[in-house]
Amino acid sequence: MTAPAPSALDAVLNHIDADSENAVGRLFELLRIPSISTQPAHAADCRAAAEWFRKDLASLGFSSSTREVKWAAPGHPMVVAHGEGEGTHVLFYGHYDVQPTDPENLWRAPAFEPQLVTDASGRKVIVARGASDDKGQVMTFLEACRAWKEVHGSLPVRVSVLLEGEEECGGSNLLPFLKENAAELKADVVLVCDTAMADRRTPGITTSLRGMMADEVLIECASHDLHSGVYGNAAANPIAVLCNVLATLRDSDGRVTLPGFYDGVKVPDDATRAQWRELFPDDSALLEEAGLSIAAGEKGFTAVEQTWCRPSCEINGISGGYEGEGFKTVLPAKAMAKVSFRLVPGQNPDLIREAFRAHVRALLPADATVTFTPHGGSPGFEVSNGSAYLSPALNALGDEWGVPAVTMGCGGSIPVAGEVREALGLDALMVGFAQADDRIHSPNEQYGLDSFHKGTRSWARILAALADVK
Amino acid sequence: MTAPAPSALDAVLNHIDADSENAVGRLFELLRIPSISTQPAHAADCRAAAEWFRKDLASLGFSSSTREVKWAAPGHPMVVAHGEGEGTHVLFYGHYDVQPTDPENLWRAPAFEPQLVTDASGRKVIVARGASDDKGQVMTFLEACRAWKEVHGSLPVRVSVLLEGEEECGGSNLLPFLKENAAELKADVVLVCDTAMADRRTPGITTSLRGMMADEVLIECASHDLHSGVYGNAAANPIAVLCNVLATLRDSDGRVTLPGFYDGVKVPDDATRAQWRELFPDDSALLEEAGLSIAAGEKGFTAVEQTWCRPSCEINGISGGYEGEGFKTVLPAKAMAKVSFRLVPGQNPDLIREAFRAHVRALLPADATVTFTPHGGSPGFEVSNGSAYLSPALNALGDEWGVPAVTMGCGGSIPVAGEVREALGLDALMVGFAQADDRIHSPNEQYGLDSFHKGTRSWARILAALADVK
Repeated sequence: MTAPAPSALDAVLNHIDADSENAVGRLFELLRIPSISTQPAHAADCRAAAEWFRKDLASLGFSSSTREVKWAAPGHPMVVAHGEGEGTHVLFYGHYDVQPTDPENLWRAPAFEPQLVTDASGRKVIVARGASDDKGQVMTFLEACRAWKEVHGSLPVRVSVLLEGEEECGGSNLLPFLKENAAELKADVVLVCDTAMADRRTPGITTSLRGMMADEVLIECASHDLHSGVYGNAAANPIAVLCNVLATLRDSDGRVTLPGFYDGVKVPDDATRAQWRELFPDDSALLEEAGLSIAAGEKGFTAVEQTWCRPSCEINGISGGYEGEGFKTVLPAKAMAKVSFRLVPGQNPDLIREAFRAHVRALLPADATVTFTPHGGSPGFEVSNGSAYLSPALNALGDEWGVPAVTMGCGGSIPVAGEVREALGLDALMVGFAQADDRIHSPNEQYGLDSFHKGTRSWARILAALADVK
Repeated sequence: MTAPAPSALDAVLNHIDADSENAVGRLFELLRIPSISTQPAHAADCRAAAEWFRKDLASLGFSSSTREVKWAAPGHPMVVAHGEGEGTHVLFYGHYDVQPTDPENLWRAPAFEPQLVTDASGRKVIVARGASDDKGQVMTFLEACRAWKEVHGSLPVRVSVLLEGEEECGGSNLLPFLKENAAELKADVVLVCDTAMADRRTPGITTSLRGMMADEVLIECASHDLHSGVYGNAAANPIAVLCNVLATLRDSDGRVTLPGFYDGVKVPDDATRAQWRELFPDDSALLEEAGLSIAAGEKGFTAVEQTWCRPSCEINGISGGYEGEGFKTVLPAKAMAKVSFRLVPGQNPDLIREAFRAHVRALLPADATVTFTPHGGSPGFEVSNGSAYLSPALNALGDEWGVPAVTMGCGGSIPVAGEVREALGLDALMVGFAQADDRIHSPNEQYGLDSFHKGTRSWARILAALADVK
């Protein structure tokens, strides 16, 4: 199948412009479903979000179904849909689950009551948990498909859709599901919409991702909470043990200290580093939105390099003893931390989990025990530069935004990219329209109306551009 | 006034034995009042506990009142009561407030529904928050006074009583209250019942106490919670900053690293250390009740020495990032820790607070700020060996328990001991009947029925013994 005539694409783009208010309405309906995958109390809401997508895809003429997953908890269902058509076959991936909303009190409106607000700069943004990550981004693709169907009755390429519900909770069902259904899900290329633009004006395709290895560490000492006066000094303090361990994970240069941690890690070529430095010349400008000024990580790398192509270690949560108002002179029995390592291509999550646990065990003093709980792991990823689909997609993005699209790295983990390669042998093109200030995972998460609308138009163009890839 | 005849004391002791069930009933009534001083929601309960004591003291013929305190929050009232009589004038101190009850789920029965249970060893114990610390202990003294009044219509010495409601929350109203009411509260000696026996069989008077300096540390970095993938490595992580700081507070020998921390700290004389080692020859036996085996603190000192006469640093609470079920890839904006330093005589809480805060500030990296919240401070304390009241009290205890009473240190802070010396110029005799396994400040706090009953009998003897101190 060859690319449709330019006039055919123009008609679709015009329809997207005319239908934009309805598109926002559909997204708001979806955002009202509190599909928090990591909290068991929201399991039914996750199913409701899956069912919402199944119905919407069916309304677009897809053969659409939800599928149970059986390999591990929490077991939120997959949504699988197939459209008709010939030629290039794309498999679109997204996720319908969202992050928890704490701290609730920092939300200006309830997290699941979406608001369309105008920010200080006069930009219209959609505010809700999941507005950007990933419900808003997924809907840019579905709205593009809807426009093609409503204008021409068909899509320029053959489209299959796979939506999961465990992306935000380190779920481990996606890979076995892909493997068990490889024949059904096999396509020519995978399209993922879960990433950001280079900046407000510059579209990009993310060609490398950091993976992640996450572990929970529980340190236990006394058999019960003790009085810190009666026992203080003589009784092992699990909070102190935990802090002593966590303080050894990085050295004074910001490098992770685990043996072999950097084995296989490659530094990007000079051309790539030069391009990134041209796009992001100023660390403090890049960190300003976060209220920060200095790249705090590995010395010798810019903020963009530290997040796009260098592995790291973060403490994501810590808890122990008395955390309430006032003061309690307790010497607690246990303390807990949630730790994650961001990984780049070449690093092995399983080996790094072993190295981390061995490091912690080696530092345990007498009377302290440790229990580990794994929270998922995925390797880093990079698109093979040879992918025939990369250039047409970059060009289509450039046409929509009026500036050349760039290839980028991404600090976040999108396990699917590595897993579709492992299970289906396919490259994933990560095309996203999020912005650095979308506050994903934070209170008042937002998605620009421009991201949503021009993102939809971008997908309409990309679908056309991929039609004649040989 | 001279000591009453032995027969007079015997009659009182017999009455205590006969009335013991009623005494337990009165204590249970008191234990049902959830007077948690550090939680604002329980302010009314603290007042209710104060009022309960005012009424009980009035029923013993004391001129009894509750007094507002005005110097600082939370402002729980004092209970002041004066009995009639001549000669030796004792001021008894205790506190009616209790610790929080978290974690609730570890209590076998609700914390404020007192239970009389028989433990595995066949010992009868009273289980409830405050059973030992300090409601049960205070009632041993009041029941002794009740017995003297009911048998003889008067007490062998002149007794005043002062009960406060901010001992468990680092309150700062006691000292100014003592100073403002010094003329009214002046006596010959202060009696305090808030300490433990040397062991099950051996009574003791605590002649030295550790003080405490408590501070809350809040580290803030980003202006809001960040996605740890997008920002991990480049953004300062306040949990990591906090752990790095807390890990530097003690060295590998368990010594506190703050400059000048040990200035003025004296090691007990060899005789005292020998007596303690005879009483507690085995660290592991001493720590067994806590489920521990090794003295984890300052090298070169036994577990008893580490807690009774050596200063220390404890982390009492820590909190930051995502602490719930599952995993959240958040790079949080802030992290908090509650830290306390146990102090011995010779150390200055104010100087140590300054040294601690300077130490934390010196370790702060770029993009991190710190906020400190003080939670009270009191110096260590020791009874001047010359106190004329010490020997008679030790002898009275020996008579009741059938073994010589010993002088002890105590790892806990009882600010009143230092404050009555400062405000009233009086020594405090700390006579207590708690046991190491009372689980004070922990779930299932308990007080032995033997501690309660023989403690009451002990006070009846001490009141008689102090009558003829010149």
